[in-house]
Amino acid sequence: MNILDTIFSHRTIRKYKKQNIDPKLLNTILEAGTKASTTGNMQVYSIIVTTDADVKAALAPAHFNQSMVNEAPVVLTFCADFNRFNKWCLQRNAIPGFDNFLSFMTAAIDALLVAQNVCIAAEANDLGICYLGTVIYNADKIIDILNLPKGVVPVATISLGYPDETPELTDRLPLEAVVHKEKYKDYSSDDIDKLYLEKEQSPIYKSFVEENNKATLAQVFTDVRYKKCDNEHFSDIFINVLKKQGFLE
Amino acid sequence: MNILDTIFSHRTIRKYKKQNIDPKLLNTILEAGTKASTTGNMQVYSIIVTTDADVKAALAPAHFNQSMVNEAPVVLTFCADFNRFNKWCLQRNAIPGFDNFLSFMTAAIDALLVAQNVCIAAEANDLGICYLGTVIYNADKIIDILNLPKGVVPVATISLGYPDETPELTDRLPLEAVVHKEKYKDYSSDDIDKLYLEKEQSPIYKSFVEENNKATLAQVFTDVRYKKCDNEHFSDIFINVLKKQGFLE
Repeated sequence: MNILDTIFSHRTIRKYKKQNIDPKLLNTILEAGTKASTTGNMQVYSIIVTTDADVKAALAPAHFNQSMVNEAPVVLTFCADFNRFNKWCLQRNAIPGFDNFLSFMTAAIDALLVAQNVCIAAEANDLGICYLGTVIYNADKIIDILNLPKGVVPVATISLGYPDETPELTDRLPLEAVVHKEKYKDYSSDDIDKLYLEKEQSPIYKSFVEENNKATLAQVFTDVRYKKCDNEHFSDIFINVLKKQGFLE
Repeated sequence: MNILDTIFSHRTIRKYKKQNIDPKLLNTILEAGTKASTTGNMQVYSIIVTTDADVKAALAPAHFNQSMVNEAPVVLTFCADFNRFNKWCLQRNAIPGFDNFLSFMTAAIDALLVAQNVCIAAEANDLGICYLGTVIYNADKIIDILNLPKGVVPVATISLGYPDETPELTDRLPLEAVVHKEKYKDYSSDDIDKLYLEKEQSPIYKSFVEENNKATLAQVFTDVRYKKCDNEHFSDIFINVLKKQGFLE
């Protein structure tokens, strides 16, 4: 399968076979991650590879007990990491100045590009992945469980294993919804109606609205899935994590 | 070329041929971007495609006049974008609660996974890319130039075009430097010496230290390339951008 076929056939996999990943293959996939672009070639990220059942069980509640954490053979936690680089600087008579928000962003970007390289390399090798957004919500708990020192913040978690399901491809908005030519062209209310029409008319989303007893699909997102109070709660936690890990000095 | 070959032969391309990218191919590459995982399938990102010489010229100073901005046929700016989603919610009697830091992180992650998909799809089609980290430094200026409304923050910029150079592959730290098994294992000073040995002994980096009149390679990073005062200055700007764009209410 060529690259575009792999990318275009991406689906999130939540059910995995009880089949381990060959360590050599896993190494190749992780190494593919390190080939991603990185600011100044500093490589300010780390990847935590968790396969041990006890550690996965400890992580599961921090991911709201999504089944993939215990059931996938491998859980990868991608971290923004200035700890290693800071240690190197200090050992070489250099005074690091990376205890600030810009440096967190730099390291988070590094880590996320690595994560997506790993996902594509995995999918090219018949593995399936699922991103767990919960890593951001419960970064404080994940830091404790994985012993992440100051300078290290988790920004992406994926479960990884051989797929035991073949879900439908997920719908996407039409390309023109997300692409702007030359500069940003803001959306009129007609644009919004047009761009969300197909999604709103799909049977899957219609039943989604019904099941949740809501009047519109948008209300499922604002009132059920991503509530303002939850977003604010987890914002406070994440900002405290950045303070505790030394990125808001 | 298979996917792993493409990923493993990634190099940053800073010189481009004067050859435009076929609009169909560009569309395919952008669509490949949209196949990346996205939180709750909200697709809270936008891609600004800049090809116009005047707009590129306006962007160039915000990227510290790196030559790629004017010389590459296409500049892509990937943005965290809750503006479109918020507008949809408001039109559907749903009250969006995405004016907080967690929502910025969610949207930034979405945008960065899209960016990396685009890069790999581009490279698979013989194009070359360069990430411009300056997008984070001068997000305020880029917001003005590209007319980004509230709810939209640029998080990645790449230049894109047919390569007119074939640079050497960039070195990377040994894989064990960035991978931790089960949990994070912090680095001893011996570990640091060992992991950075090859980099420090390479002729390229040795001349880099000499040219900059520094005693160690680490000092080139802390005293020349990524100074604490600059990091703090651009942190303040970026935090103000998050406030102005409505992510720290």
